[in-house]
Amino acid sequence: MINVSAEQFPVRKVTPTATIDTGDMLAVEEPLEIRVVSGTEGSRIEKTISITMRTPGHDEELAAGFLFTEGVIKNPGEIAGIKSEASVNVATVQLDANITPALSTLDRNFYTTSSCGVCGKTSMDAVRTKSMFNTGESNLRVPSTLLHTLQEKLRGQQKVFDVTGGLHASALFDREGNLTLVREDVGRHNALDKVIGACLRNNHLPLSESILFLSGRISFELVQKACMAGIPFIAAIGAPSTLAVTMAEECGMTLVGFLRDQRFTVYSGKQRII
Amino acid sequence: MINVSAEQFPVRKVTPTATIDTGDMLAVEEPLEIRVVSGTEGSRIEKTISITMRTPGHDEELAAGFLFTEGVIKNPGEIAGIKSEASVNVATVQLDANITPALSTLDRNFYTTSSCGVCGKTSMDAVRTKSMFNTGESNLRVPSTLLHTLQEKLRGQQKVFDVTGGLHASALFDREGNLTLVREDVGRHNALDKVIGACLRNNHLPLSESILFLSGRISFELVQKACMAGIPFIAAIGAPSTLAVTMAEECGMTLVGFLRDQRFTVYSGKQRII
Repeated sequence: MINVSAEQFPVRKVTPTATIDTGDMLAVEEPLEIRVVSGTEGSRIEKTISITMRTPGHDEELAAGFLFTEGVIKNPGEIAGIKSEASVNVATVQLDANITPALSTLDRNFYTTSSCGVCGKTSMDAVRTKSMFNTGESNLRVPSTLLHTLQEKLRGQQKVFDVTGGLHASALFDREGNLTLVREDVGRHNALDKVIGACLRNNHLPLSESILFLSGRISFELVQKACMAGIPFIAAIGAPSTLAVTMAEECGMTLVGFLRDQRFTVYSGKQRII
Repeated sequence: MINVSAEQFPVRKVTPTATIDTGDMLAVEEPLEIRVVSGTEGSRIEKTISITMRTPGHDEELAAGFLFTEGVIKNPGEIAGIKSEASVNVATVQLDANITPALSTLDRNFYTTSSCGVCGKTSMDAVRTKSMFNTGESNLRVPSTLLHTLQEKLRGQQKVFDVTGGLHASALFDREGNLTLVREDVGRHNALDKVIGACLRNNHLPLSESILFLSGRISFELVQKACMAGIPFIAAIGAPSTLAVTMAEECGMTLVGFLRDQRFTVYSGKQRII
């Protein structure tokens, strides 16, 4: 299988009884430079706002999702066009001529290329994004029996993970438990930005009826991005951090972790689980 | 167990047969602002060079390690002192009065707060760090039987992971397979910076006789940081990315992944495994 998201490398596999020289598929990791172009011809501003290590594929969704979850743009109409040049690892987002992006928000993004995100208690106000949506208002209710089915449904769609073992996945399920979208990436924040970017471009925000399923652990940054998209329910295979739970509570979001082996743990918003 | 690295939160645990409201320990995630102070009294420069989401503990090691692995400082003598204020999540590094940090390197660090790291092919030269050490020259040799013992030795020391399930670990082993240092963090890059920072401050660099063991996957950024510290051998439980393998080859480093269940896969530098 040759895929832009996975590449074959020569490897040596060692067990107590055998040593085999063979080939193995690895998850591709490459930098993506996200540039924003704003203004009109006379006052054109071009600015690199992030360089993120990502798995190639869905770069335009990633760029759009990043701009939205970081608060640089507020709706898909602010994007006039996105040009993705995969060969040089650049995605350029042309903003609508009427839009003036908040430069302070852009500056903030130099900190937030990361899966570790950022907030700085001393500068918490400056770096916290503010969601347009009230996730707490969602009347989504999810049966616990449905939660137990999510992991298996996702695994059937994790195509690159299956061959590399090296990717994070971010998936959306509807309230009936149907998988509606999945994206994979070496960076978990990128996988989520790709999902949100795709929904943004299809005018599907807010995602107030969706369950976000994450293949790994839950950090503050992932909860904040989900909140920006109006997602009221996160379920993950891994553990959340303290700040992830605090953020979920603030957003009125349901947060479920350790969802595996027919068990799960609820950290916030337990009224949504029936 | 009450620990600065883990905090108890109220949770609900759900299984098919029971629902229990109880408490659970979570890995603490909080921002750390790393500031650098340079110059003399007349020309004092104070600059925030990174805000990283980290697990509190060993903040001074983290700050020192970050400055070193990102190329801002070259040896421990350049640090006059580090003041860590845990209550406000700030670590301030006072550089020696004779040191003028490269501002371009500092600017670069705005991109590299992240576990996704950064490099930007278009700006690869600007963001690639350059190691003082030649990891390829290390004559370290490691028996495959020794590799199989590392994971169990680490697990015995992963104190916070044991209670939270939410942390990455970074550990050093000597050539006899003795665990010499372990650090845990919500961010894998932070765990490694804490390890390298501790060694820097104890004048133990380069780590040309050490095996670095990682609890998760291997990204480009982790390999680059290890290379900065002169580490010739990385073994990890998880999978590497393509760029991690490419970087390890460039550094003459041995890279082993999927080290579990009495198996492992060698991606580069197989001459060091006996």
